[in-house]
Amino acid sequence: MMTQDEYVKSLRDMKTVVYYRGKRIENFVDHPAIRPHINSAALTYSTGKDGEIDENRTTLSHLTGKRINRFTSIHMTPEDLVMKVKALRGIAQKSGSCFQRCVGWDALNALYGVTYEIDQAKGTKYHENLVKYLLYIQDTDRMADGAMTDPKGDRSLAPSKQADPDQFLHIVERREDGIVVRGAKQHQTGAVNSHEIICMPGGAMGPDDADYAVAFAIQMDAPGIICIFGRQTNDDRKLEESDVDKGNACFGAVGGEALVVFEDVFVPWERVFMAGEYEFCGLLVERFASYHRQNYGGCKTGLSDILIGACATMSDYQGTSKASHIKEKLTEMSHLGETMYCCSLACSHEGTTNASGQCFVDPLLANITKLNVTRNVFELGRLAQDIAGGVIATLPSAEDLNDPEIGKYVQKYFKGVEGIATEDRIRIGRLIENLSSGTALVESMHGAGSPQAMKVMIARQMKLDKKKRLATDLAGITESEETAAAKARTV
Amino acid sequence: MMTQDEYVKSLRDMKTVVYYRGKRIENFVDHPAIRPHINSAALTYSTGKDGEIDENRTTLSHLTGKRINRFTSIHMTPEDLVMKVKALRGIAQKSGSCFQRCVGWDALNALYGVTYEIDQAKGTKYHENLVKYLLYIQDTDRMADGAMTDPKGDRSLAPSKQADPDQFLHIVERREDGIVVRGAKQHQTGAVNSHEIICMPGGAMGPDDADYAVAFAIQMDAPGIICIFGRQTNDDRKLEESDVDKGNACFGAVGGEALVVFEDVFVPWERVFMAGEYEFCGLLVERFASYHRQNYGGCKTGLSDILIGACATMSDYQGTSKASHIKEKLTEMSHLGETMYCCSLACSHEGTTNASGQCFVDPLLANITKLNVTRNVFELGRLAQDIAGGVIATLPSAEDLNDPEIGKYVQKYFKGVEGIATEDRIRIGRLIENLSSGTALVESMHGAGSPQAMKVMIARQMKLDKKKRLATDLAGITESEETAAAKARTV
Amino acid sequence: MMTQDEYVKSLRDMKTVVYYRGKRIENFVDHPAIRPHINSAALTYSTGKDGEIDENRTTLSHLTGKRINRFTSIHMTPEDLVMKVKALRGIAQKSGSCFQRCVGWDALNALYGVTYEIDQAKGTKYHENLVKYLLYIQDTDRMADGAMTDPKGDRSLAPSKQADPDQFLHIVERREDGIVVRGAKQHQTGAVNSHEIICMPGGAMGPDDADYAVAFAIQMDAPGIICIFGRQTNDDRKLEESDVDKGNACFGAVGGEALVVFEDVFVPWERVFMAGEYEFCGLLVERFASYHRQNYGGCKTGLSDILIGACATMSDYQGTSKASHIKEKLTEMSHLGETMYCCSLACSHEGTTNASGQCFVDPLLANITKLNVTRNVFELGRLAQDIAGGVIATLPSAEDLNDPEIGKYVQKYFKGVEGIATEDRIRIGRLIENLSSGTALVESMHGAGSPQAMKVMIARQMKLDKKKRLATDLAGITESEETAAAKARTV
Amino acid sequence: MMTQDEYVKSLRDMKTVVYYRGKRIENFVDHPAIRPHINSAALTYSTGKDGEIDENRTTLSHLTGKRINRFTSIHMTPEDLVMKVKALRGIAQKSGSCFQRCVGWDALNALYGVTYEIDQAKGTKYHENLVKYLLYIQDTDRMADGAMTDPKGDRSLAPSKQADPDQFLHIVERREDGIVVRGAKQHQTGAVNSHEIICMPGGAMGPDDADYAVAFAIQMDAPGIICIFGRQTNDDRKLEESDVDKGNACFGAVGGEALVVFEDVFVPWERVFMAGEYEFCGLLVERFASYHRQNYGGCKTGLSDILIGACATMSDYQGTSKASHIKEKLTEMSHLGETMYCCSLACSHEGTTNASGQCFVDPLLANITKLNVTRNVFELGRLAQDIAGGVIATLPSAEDLNDPEIGKYVQKYFKGVEGIATEDRIRIGRLIENLSSGTALVESMHGAGSPQAMKVMIARQMKLDKKKRLATDLAGITESEETAAAKARTV
Repeated sequence: MMTQDEYVKSLRDMKTVVYYRGKRIENFVDHPAIRPHINSAALTYSTGKDGEIDENRTTLSHLTGKRINRFTSIHMTPEDLVMKVKALRGIAQKSGSCFQRCVGWDALNALYGVTYEIDQAKGTKYHENLVKYLLYIQDTDRMADGAMTDPKGDRSLAPSKQADPDQFLHIVERREDGIVVRGAKQHQTGAVNSHEIICMPGGAMGPDDADYAVAFAIQMDAPGIICIFGRQTNDDRKLEESDVDKGNACFGAVGGEALVVFEDVFVPWERVFMAGEYEFCGLLVERFASYHRQNYGGCKTGLSDILIGACATMSDYQGTSKASHIKEKLTEMSHLGETMYCCSLACSHEGTTNASGQCFVDPLLANITKLNVTRNVFELGRLAQDIAGGVIATLPSAEDLNDPEIGKYVQKYFKGVEGIATEDRIRIGRLIENLSSGTALVESMHGAGSPQAMKVMIARQMKLDKKKRLATDLAGITESEETAAAKARTV
Repeated sequence: MMTQDEYVKSLRDMKTVVYYRGKRIENFVDHPAIRPHINSAALTYSTGKDGEIDENRTTLSHLTGKRINRFTSIHMTPEDLVMKVKALRGIAQKSGSCFQRCVGWDALNALYGVTYEIDQAKGTKYHENLVKYLLYIQDTDRMADGAMTDPKGDRSLAPSKQADPDQFLHIVERREDGIVVRGAKQHQTGAVNSHEIICMPGGAMGPDDADYAVAFAIQMDAPGIICIFGRQTNDDRKLEESDVDKGNACFGAVGGEALVVFEDVFVPWERVFMAGEYEFCGLLVERFASYHRQNYGGCKTGLSDILIGACATMSDYQGTSKASHIKEKLTEMSHLGETMYCCSLACSHEGTTNASGQCFVDPLLANITKLNVTRNVFELGRLAQDIAGGVIATLPSAEDLNDPEIGKYVQKYFKGVEGIATEDRIRIGRLIENLSSGTALVESMHGAGSPQAMKVMIARQMKLDKKKRLATDLAGITESEETAAAKARTV
Repeated sequence: MMTQDEYVKSLRDMKTVVYYRGKRIENFVDHPAIRPHINSAALTYSTGKDGEIDENRTTLSHLTGKRINRFTSIHMTPEDLVMKVKALRGIAQKSGSCFQRCVGWDALNALYGVTYEIDQAKGTKYHENLVKYLLYIQDTDRMADGAMTDPKGDRSLAPSKQADPDQFLHIVERREDGIVVRGAKQHQTGAVNSHEIICMPGGAMGPDDADYAVAFAIQMDAPGIICIFGRQTNDDRKLEESDVDKGNACFGAVGGEALVVFEDVFVPWERVFMAGEYEFCGLLVERFASYHRQNYGGCKTGLSDILIGACATMSDYQGTSKASHIKEKLTEMSHLGETMYCCSLACSHEGTTNASGQCFVDPLLANITKLNVTRNVFELGRLAQDIAGGVIATLPSAEDLNDPEIGKYVQKYFKGVEGIATEDRIRIGRLIENLSSGTALVESMHGAGSPQAMKVMIARQMKLDKKKRLATDLAGITESEETAAAKARTV
Repeated sequence: MMTQDEYVKSLRDMKTVVYYRGKRIENFVDHPAIRPHINSAALTYSTGKDGEIDENRTTLSHLTGKRINRFTSIHMTPEDLVMKVKALRGIAQKSGSCFQRCVGWDALNALYGVTYEIDQAKGTKYHENLVKYLLYIQDTDRMADGAMTDPKGDRSLAPSKQADPDQFLHIVERREDGIVVRGAKQHQTGAVNSHEIICMPGGAMGPDDADYAVAFAIQMDAPGIICIFGRQTNDDRKLEESDVDKGNACFGAVGGEALVVFEDVFVPWERVFMAGEYEFCGLLVERFASYHRQNYGGCKTGLSDILIGACATMSDYQGTSKASHIKEKLTEMSHLGETMYCCSLACSHEGTTNASGQCFVDPLLANITKLNVTRNVFELGRLAQDIAGGVIATLPSAEDLNDPEIGKYVQKYFKGVEGIATEDRIRIGRLIENLSSGTALVESMHGAGSPQAMKVMIARQMKLDKKKRLATDLAGITESEETAAAKARTV
């Protein structure tokens, strides 16, 4: 297992092609717009101190029995799934931002089970490939990105019906030694600072889309891969000298998403996990999405812990912490946070074993989790901004705070309760701003899928027929054949 | 273990004093206002058919190793707690109403742990009493009510400060062989059709309230106990001949609550579990409330399953089931229901062992559960009434439906889709009315405590100091001594 | 103008055929299930005391200049519309229930404008008929019901496509002297105690539905009309001797809805306002619905005033009125109520003159009004039940309260603050139960149309094209022809 | 009246001291961080084109009868108040941001009435001063800022109890020719680009706070005034060359708030409107706050119009505009927006004349308006981010879009529907980001006062006693003297 320092050092050896703000960034490790995301991801490498083993952050490989970083493991029991959620909450409480590494973990786990099932049905060898790759990851502790979202172009059209055939990542050539792929993956969290990327198809597909039914892993600095790093809310502040206005100077905000372009990238067969088995795309999406949606009640509750703490601190600083409406709002925030956490825990504890022997979350409850997140995080932000006060929208800059001419006015007039340093009040205000604005909210909405995607999955799994029977039984309805026939016609 | 029939038969032997609508009800077992609640409670006696054992509804006594009705067990593991939630959801899916028996179960469990701790601290013998009583209950499978809520009079005053000293149940005499108690317990679900009642103090208390710090068990037909059965929404319909308008003819609605008056009731010492140890009242309330709040994401989700099924059926009957807004609302209802379920599961899975060796739910998450219930059940009702249509508020009576003169008009004009029997549409409408109105909603609000009680408990357990530290660490705030002192002054 | 007494007396002369609970009710005026609704409607006849004129409740006829009951007037100015809303709120504050007479008023106003426009387009004489009828109503002060909702059968089918042709009211014969109609109108508020009924088609229609495009007025006791009075939540309590459990003993709850069957009813041509002009059905529905939706922020805010007052009184009685969470909830209730009121006022003040010279509400804002009502009334009910406490679901009956044996226990244990009569606390509890349960909520959801109907109208009127232009202008987008073409293809 | 160009030109003559990011900004008019706010304010100077008069944006002075910019008028009728709301919505539809000038308008109106009442009570001459100043403003069309919010230090302490006496703006010297004031006003919208500033006390005050009871007007470039311009979300983007990432390049976002420091500023008596009359502070705050809260259903609905249009455009661009959930969300957004608008209209139409002869909004409904805004704007933002998709959080920069190397990838992979320019999609995305994030939301929460301030005012005006009487009357409660006495004790 790597340490945090080894992880950062390992990135320096990568030749990943990264662009940001129209420039090629050679040394992305030390670039101020990117470094905070690296710091955040590095927290997943905190697996123990001074020779001690952290039992939460590490586990034993079910393949080799060796101790590995938990982020490289396959979930074999509900307890594993629960430990995942708790690890995510714990790290988020430290990072205050996305630490990115769950997505590759989820990709590995989704592919582990699905490749097994493809092989069973088709006589292919994808699972063998996946297991070999998994051993490599467990052994090297490399960070892998998980990539599902295609650009999609016109969303009302299937991959093969797009005007531009590259709007979904696809195989353009099948060679003896491997495949060549073209297209892109969007919104790729942590792509720039991952060692590997694991690509999967982004939706259910039909026979015409067979070339789009492709899953594989490849190193991020493979020839033909180009990362274009996206903008975030207040991303310019990351470039500033003072850390006062950054909100979360060390770890940034959200995940550092990038567009990852695949310009005819070669992938050897041993790294290919699906290549044409379109009928398994829906299953793979469902598996990956469910594992990924499970997470959000972990990490987002961790972030809400910080936000609640920041609001409570702000109230202390401003002399409002005894007001009943402040107490009420902090309690409500805790309620909203813990509700998300409950959902993550529940879908984990209720995990079941699938054909590959691995443990899969309860997919209905995993979708419930994420749908709550798309609402609760916004209400948390609203309450936080209520408690914090208008000051978070009008705070002057760190340059003003420290200005020899006018710094004294900022010091004087942005002070709260006597004895509290003005800078501390500003820092807490900026943290609240960071956690409740822009990119942070959008990520809670669309990360791991948009709300409508959850609703489709909930509708599919809510067992409406069983529920109808419960109701008609209780209502004393004995359906005649005619009634049953009439209903069958209307449904 | 008793069967359903044996349970009903056993009630006929009880001499419980029951009043309803100003009349003494001698044969309460066959009284149409009460019988549905008995039918509902009887479902907790469905522990197996034809010699087969139902592993969910029964378990092994941790005291004797014998197989017992699960509703008489002490939870020893998180799995026990989870089985409880699943049993509650399962029974609720059959009953469509409260089956009442969880409350006595929770009383037994709360007292099991707390008597142990009192004994440890005080050298008393309450736990021994409790264990003996538990063995009796496990052996006989008697149904026990759990009673916590006092009338409370002026809610701004402590028990000992009330104008009427009987507003909280209290000890009026301590005799050699036992105690004499006076007062009442309110809102007692299932009291009339329980064999036993287990009383507990209803709040934290001080030294002046020592006589109010009393817990005990006694048979429901003990001298001095009087039940006054309350009214429910549409309770008169239970007295009607036709079952069409009843909504849930067999099992009624909610729990059949009664005021239970204790007019100088004698309780032998061996049935006393607390008598003066006021400093443990808060703990007992917290334990009981947490166990009880755990339940609501079980049974209420079971009820929501029926409600969703009823709404889907109504849509089929009316020809609206293909409308996108109907599908969206059914999905939302499922989301609201499963969110409650997640919370119940989470607080169960996260249960921990307490001093007595028993497993206690996570109290924070149990309170989160119930707070969600006080909101989600209402929104479920609102959506149900949206889907059902105005017809559920204007349906004519069963007498009209069957009237020789005008029955034909009711048949004709309340018909939905061709081929569906009008009576079936009415029955489903009445079931929706039953599940989304009046008493059913109030119970979701106040059963196991009112929302404010949850908020107080959440506020107490939300670890605000830890959260503040997370925030200040992340914001880069190193608190000076002066800052720490200033904050200490403001909090 | 009639007085309240004259109104009640006038009903005794009606030969309306009324059925309730399977029985023909000859003297419906004094029937306890119906009388409260008559009392409620009678409040619309409170137009002045002792010779004084109430300027709010009366106005001058724009046709004759004579003083008339406002409920028989045509709105000619925005001020008229505003006075309507204020009159509705004022009466609701007294009745605590639906007083029914707005619906006929709205029917008259909707037909006034639409008949004018039909005549303009078609050369018909409907407006002349309507004006003559209006003069008759203004002169006699007769109460007219407005009837739009057909049974509808299978809601996915048009009138002419139903298996049963009578699922929508229609013309079965056109005679020289008039038309004969068959079918029914559902959910008819106040039908039993109206003198007249004004029928309108219930939706937009096509050429095949021409016989269903029929509007007319007829006296309620015309041959062939049969009323079947529906059930309400707790309707049996209206039959009880004591008024303690009734909640609102004098005025009942909601509107006393009935199914009104038209069994080949003859209507003379002079009372016909539409007979085949199917292309005007949509317009008529929009006009009627908008006028009717305007009302709900008037009357429902009046009801919310009572509910808030009842909750505040209950808090006083229970000793909780100083708790901050109670104050917060009462304030929130007021916020929810006044928001509905604001919407009603706004759509009235923004009324504009239509072709007939009459003033029409802003239809977009009228729909906004009602959509808020379908949400806010439910949240008001939820908060009321929160404040009131579980007691409203478990209160014993008035028979218990007054029982010589056990009345003393009810008196003692349902008492609140010392000095408050227990009966008063029960009465307030029952009023809260009445206002927050069952029928009262359903009426807020579906009266004047279901939420989806509002959404359809809002979507149609929200000027999306204009809004898109605002956005593209601001974003600096100059659309190329190609872009415009692409967008045209996608919309 | 000035034209837009004249307004901008007039600012060049101002010597206002402005700091931003630690630097003195001499030419603030052309500074890219400030200019958008000037452009926005300039829209209030669009009073007619080519000699034509815009009747909406201008009116006749009630003092002189001359035509004046409406933003300098005193509201004399409800129609004036309604025109205000419509003007605000109309301008906001153009600016997409705060145009700042309502706040000085509200200050003038609040002071107009209150100075009249002070003079009546105290025999002072403040109203005369105010009228003279008003004539000057009407004549010159100068833009005045309205300043109420003090820094407040420890919010649990009164002005005179603060550790630092300058935490509230106060009189430090009373001279023969005027007063000298010290302190600051926070969150001052439009301060930098106003000609004048009108200061008012920020809360109710007691006798000890008399020196804090000070109201006056002064030019923004008076000696001793220093502006420190605050940061906004993404404020750095305003400094970029390309306008693609700015969202709203021309008009910025929100209002350009500044801290305005008063370092011993001299104000001549003729510009003083209150100096010690502490007992009128509460009234002035209520007046100003009510006038100011009235606005938010105007301007924020205007902004929501743009946001809805932007989301609809984004859906067109992405091929999702036919999805039922998208239509539903757009409709809901319209509902949320129009609800705010209804409230603003209602509090305006219901305005009443006060002692000075001016028309005052309904203060209860004005507070209802703003409280809805503090919720609806957040939900609008949430729905907008839902519709827009994750892309708004991960869009690359304009530099990337136009880069010769990688621009082609951005062009290709951020394209939506065929035929739509990628840049157009990005522009709409950035506009949605701008309108739904950070500062824009915070302003909706705290501008014109925080939610708790509205709740306090609603609670004060909701006539609870009247509502209680309505309830007890209806419940049939005739209160005994004893009951009345008991209730008086509990309230």
